[in-house]
Amino acid sequence: MGLTKPVLNSPSVWPRRVVRLEGNRLDPWSSDIVKDYRRVMEQFGLSGPTKEQVEFFQDAPFFRRRIIFAHRDLDVIIDAIRSGREYAVLTGIKPTGDYHMGTFQTVKEFVYFQRKSPQAIAVFSIADIEAWEDNGISFEESKKIAISNVSDLLAAGLDLERAYIYFQSKEIRVHELAALAARGITLATMRAVYGERHMGLYLSALVQIGDILLPQHPDLGGPKPTLVPVGIDQDPHLRLTRDVASKLKPKWGFVEPASTYHLIIRSLLGDKKMSKRDPMSYISLRDDESLVRKKILNAFTGGRETAQLQRELGGEPWKCVVYEIAKFHLYADKDEELEKIYRECVAGERLCGECKMQILEDLIEEMKEHERRRIEVLPTARQIVERAWNRQPLYTASSGGA
Amino acid sequence: MGLTKPVLNSPSVWPRRVVRLEGNRLDPWSSDIVKDYRRVMEQFGLSGPTKEQVEFFQDAPFFRRRIIFAHRDLDVIIDAIRSGREYAVLTGIKPTGDYHMGTFQTVKEFVYFQRKSPQAIAVFSIADIEAWEDNGISFEESKKIAISNVSDLLAAGLDLERAYIYFQSKEIRVHELAALAARGITLATMRAVYGERHMGLYLSALVQIGDILLPQHPDLGGPKPTLVPVGIDQDPHLRLTRDVASKLKPKWGFVEPASTYHLIIRSLLGDKKMSKRDPMSYISLRDDESLVRKKILNAFTGGRETAQLQRELGGEPWKCVVYEIAKFHLYADKDEELEKIYRECVAGERLCGECKMQILEDLIEEMKEHERRRIEVLPTARQIVERAWNRQPLYTASSGGA
Repeated sequence: MGLTKPVLNSPSVWPRRVVRLEGNRLDPWSSDIVKDYRRVMEQFGLSGPTKEQVEFFQDAPFFRRRIIFAHRDLDVIIDAIRSGREYAVLTGIKPTGDYHMGTFQTVKEFVYFQRKSPQAIAVFSIADIEAWEDNGISFEESKKIAISNVSDLLAAGLDLERAYIYFQSKEIRVHELAALAARGITLATMRAVYGERHMGLYLSALVQIGDILLPQHPDLGGPKPTLVPVGIDQDPHLRLTRDVASKLKPKWGFVEPASTYHLIIRSLLGDKKMSKRDPMSYISLRDDESLVRKKILNAFTGGRETAQLQRELGGEPWKCVVYEIAKFHLYADKDEELEKIYRECVAGERLCGECKMQILEDLIEEMKEHERRRIEVLPTARQIVERAWNRQPLYTASSGGA
Repeated sequence: MGLTKPVLNSPSVWPRRVVRLEGNRLDPWSSDIVKDYRRVMEQFGLSGPTKEQVEFFQDAPFFRRRIIFAHRDLDVIIDAIRSGREYAVLTGIKPTGDYHMGTFQTVKEFVYFQRKSPQAIAVFSIADIEAWEDNGISFEESKKIAISNVSDLLAAGLDLERAYIYFQSKEIRVHELAALAARGITLATMRAVYGERHMGLYLSALVQIGDILLPQHPDLGGPKPTLVPVGIDQDPHLRLTRDVASKLKPKWGFVEPASTYHLIIRSLLGDKKMSKRDPMSYISLRDDESLVRKKILNAFTGGRETAQLQRELGGEPWKCVVYEIAKFHLYADKDEELEKIYRECVAGERLCGECKMQILEDLIEEMKEHERRRIEVLPTARQIVERAWNRQPLYTASSGGA
């Protein structure tokens, strides 16, 4: 979801360099992206999470580690959690391939925000229309790929009793909402947010607005706070959806969706973000052990040219992709382990070879554990995909229908 | 349906004057529109119906009277009828108000083409998305208005056993097909066919493509010849849909939709076409007797300035809106009555006052008869609308579900 890419330079004029390769020697959670984005964040009303907000979400490594570095209306969600009121968390996947270390970050946030309150519902869009418009992948192919995606979602701990999983091409409510939204969106706005694209991608963008408003459809219980955890590159799309929600508020009562923004995990080669288009640039959740080994051993680090230099100057973990993978995906309950790695690296007490071996073993362990859970829930995933494909009623995955 | 108006001058460069006010003194069915359109018709592969085709549809007054003056692929439908193969006929209504003498012409053709073969299925779109995008009419308002529209459809003789009636906002298959179609349609094409419009109208145009392809959806039995009877102003839209069908043919097997084109009935004031936007310009099927009288008595005719001149020069029935209404809607089985009116008018033997009185009485009789049938089927219409609104399965109107 989200690959009908908003145009980053217009109208929001994002800084071109998404990740700055300068770190802070004292702070294992540092990232200068916030500094880069400060002007844009102020202009569009994004804030960094406050100390109180981070405190509230202490049990989430991605808050403690400042992976979520910006948000909009997060307090609306915190209020709902505190007061036990219903809210929704929404995400999706463009089913063009398996989850990788980049895209899976959103799944972790999605499951976390659902589990955070028994009053949360989780809504998950299998964006088969986007996969068709953007990649020419047929709905039938999407259906096959979606089984793998949904199994990862379940293995990550989604509570099926409070989840709704659907295909864009099979969920009429999404199109009802997209049609509602479309009236009054000018071509100029579409061009500004998405660039000059073919009608398929514009349609896909409207359908995504429908996705984001779906939790507030009368059939899903009507207006409610909705949180959409995304990568920062999705913000122009979120802003457009908020405009639409605000315009439709008088009649439909929509609440403008809240959002959190996480850092973009870099490619294994140290540049750009992980992308499905280059398989060697990322670790897929379906990569086997030997492939993961190969990829990590080839990955870009923050090491110096020689071991001697490294001992003298210390490493630069803020440049290191392997450290980044650990920060995003390992030691969920052991920040001190990450801090130790960081400290030792900066102090020159840790060389890249041994460090890679440690992180590699822990990563493989983590992936095996995930895969074990996934195989267990695979039959359920198949069943969910089949029912979604056949347009079964809401909340049918395990609870037997609304 | 069809009011996301294609741009008439681009790229098809229609003649600006849709109806020429010159007639042929010898031919009660004459219209010079075909002459005006000849170049365009040739350019885009439209033909006039051949003698054999008109012969085949002899039982339809609108063929005998050359109201249908052009078509595309009509032989594909004739072949299906002759060989007893399945085909579909499709139309719809933008539910912004009651049917009038202009829009109701399509209903007559729709029902006729369904009744022409026991193998025909009739598919009818209640274009509530178009009503929202184009006129700001909410889906709920559309639902109310649709009851009146559907009752007219039933009163016109639709066979419910072979009909599928749906709301655009409630029929997911239409959106699945619209999404399929959208990939590869450029903005340049949209601009050429519809002009620079807001996204709602572009979305509505895509949804209409979905409407036209719906009879060929696997859930409705897959590919089959489909006939779409429309006014000539809809041709650019039909051409676009044929392009889409042709592009999707390799995978989906779609047959390019056939179409028939009828003359546009003029406003009661003699210019333009009947339009819902000016209530005095048309006779609605819900107008009461006294209003119909008033409108007909005020209508534009082909009469001369004085009775004496009329007796000397004869009238000009090709200019006369009242004659046009009779040609479209009266004396279905009595062409000789129309011919007599025409002949007497041209010969100066008939003055407008008496002529209006005759046609008025016959029109009121016809409308009363229609209204009697309509009141009878109104409960069924309510039921159909309710089921369509609630997304009941296919073919549920009377046969109890697919």
